[in-house]
Amino acid sequence: MKDQFYKHIENLQDSITSKIEEVDGLAKFKEDIWQRQEGGGGRTRVIENGAIFEKGGVNISAVHGELPEVLRKQFNADEGTFFACGLSLVLHPINPMIPTVHANWRYFEMYDTTGKMVTQWFGGGQDLTPYYLFDEDAIHFHTVCKNVCDSYSPDFYSTFKKNCDDYFWNTHREEARGLGGLFFDYLKATNSFTILDRYNFVTAVGASFLESYLPIVQKRKDIPFTISQKDWQEIRRGRYVEFNLVHDRGTLFGLKTNGRIESILMSLPPVVQWKYNHHPEKESEEERLIAVLTNPKEWV
Amino acid sequence: MKDQFYKHIENLQDSITSKIEEVDGLAKFKEDIWQRQEGGGGRTRVIENGAIFEKGGVNISAVHGELPEVLRKQFNADEGTFFACGLSLVLHPINPMIPTVHANWRYFEMYDTTGKMVTQWFGGGQDLTPYYLFDEDAIHFHTVCKNVCDSYSPDFYSTFKKNCDDYFWNTHREEARGLGGLFFDYLKATNSFTILDRYNFVTAVGASFLESYLPIVQKRKDIPFTISQKDWQEIRRGRYVEFNLVHDRGTLFGLKTNGRIESILMSLPPVVQWKYNHHPEKESEEERLIAVLTNPKEWV
Repeated sequence: MKDQFYKHIENLQDSITSKIEEVDGLAKFKEDIWQRQEGGGGRTRVIENGAIFEKGGVNISAVHGELPEVLRKQFNADEGTFFACGLSLVLHPINPMIPTVHANWRYFEMYDTTGKMVTQWFGGGQDLTPYYLFDEDAIHFHTVCKNVCDSYSPDFYSTFKKNCDDYFWNTHREEARGLGGLFFDYLKATNSFTILDRYNFVTAVGASFLESYLPIVQKRKDIPFTISQKDWQEIRRGRYVEFNLVHDRGTLFGLKTNGRIESILMSLPPVVQWKYNHHPEKESEEERLIAVLTNPKEWV
Repeated sequence: MKDQFYKHIENLQDSITSKIEEVDGLAKFKEDIWQRQEGGGGRTRVIENGAIFEKGGVNISAVHGELPEVLRKQFNADEGTFFACGLSLVLHPINPMIPTVHANWRYFEMYDTTGKMVTQWFGGGQDLTPYYLFDEDAIHFHTVCKNVCDSYSPDFYSTFKKNCDDYFWNTHREEARGLGGLFFDYLKATNSFTILDRYNFVTAVGASFLESYLPIVQKRKDIPFTISQKDWQEIRRGRYVEFNLVHDRGTLFGLKTNGRIESILMSLPPVVQWKYNHHPEKESEEERLIAVLTNPKEWV
């Protein structure tokens, strides 16, 4: 399974990066291959200063070795080894009318001291972070998410949509990072689903990514915007940074397990502002976004 | 003691903000008085878009109430109440030749369930974060720190200077946030020092702040700078954000104890950049700074 999933994310990285380059039309991804001292490594691909994408990364990695301290605590395991691989992507567009998007699909195995696999699971999801709210974009993104979920189980969309709203909650701001999407973790084999069913679901979600996001890019990329709308985007990007550095388990896991810093922090936006106590004007488009972020809604 | 120290930081806030306004010559501090639901409150003063200071805050607060969860864990205390007050300041200049400065001086009391005070201590310090390295500025700042320490004990400077280097270490980057200064905590009454001795020391450190920083501002404020030097400042500010949101105990304490978010996060710089895998050119001024940050040195 681990070879099968790694092969899958290698191919997915290729298809996503080539399509993003085609849509951008200007910038190309820069590739860095890196090794992890304790075992494994990755292939980081970053795009910067494009015609559409100001900064973005589409990274894969496969790491293995002794269970790090942070995982031993989390799983109450004294010792053992692990394997983890996944694809992570974040795209920060220039135009504030295009939302930022994040996705991650991953697979994990844990072994006891004899090397016997004791557990395996999939995790991941994808979520949308707009700066200006176009209801039809939110509906489109969530519809693609729902359709892929519905092919596997009638419960998946409602469960994983709620997980996503819960996970990307910026507690200290009492607002969501964005409009959500899907978030799932510890998808193990059960009575109802084999591990291959899980694989099929997670790879189907990954395969739907471009369809969930690119039509929104195409629709919004030529809308003119003002300096104050760009400022708003950069201020909202500050909330993105706050979430990723204070709350995001994936980022903090990477920072605590000697991950490759530049691959982990490629998620941070290119230019960010923090203004003191900034609030949008009453009844503005900016305030309409905040209203939805503080009270996540059902889009489909 | 708590009234005496609070009175002191009220006056210190007034003298620091009025002097900063005078030096800036353009912007004025905006004041917000806030209340904490669980007890206490603060007086936040923020300056933005000045002639010299791009953004800064000089805040005081005095909070009290039931010991928050995070403190009960830290002190192994089942229940009780606390009082904490302090002054925190951060100044982010426009000109990358002027360093960012941070300072904090605070006082803490803990009480048992009968309301009897069980412990009291002072904490704080000040540290300098330059974007370009002027050795004489580092020497000046540390000399002021050392002189005030030496009036109280011959050990203070070496101890608190090392504490500062250790505390402001950005572990995931393996570099210091800046050039350090002083950092001290849990300064309680001992055989050698009464709590009044501690008060006298901490207030003397606070009183030396303007002398440690303003001569540097005056000396660097008219040096011309290029766009790429400004970019470098904004990239380095990214490391400042990473430290404050990932590692800084004060910031995380505030976020976990329902502190006033805008007063806590006033420390974040106004404009910040994250470029993928950015490294300064060989033998550049930027690289000279990094060399000192990765290997903190003795300045006096």
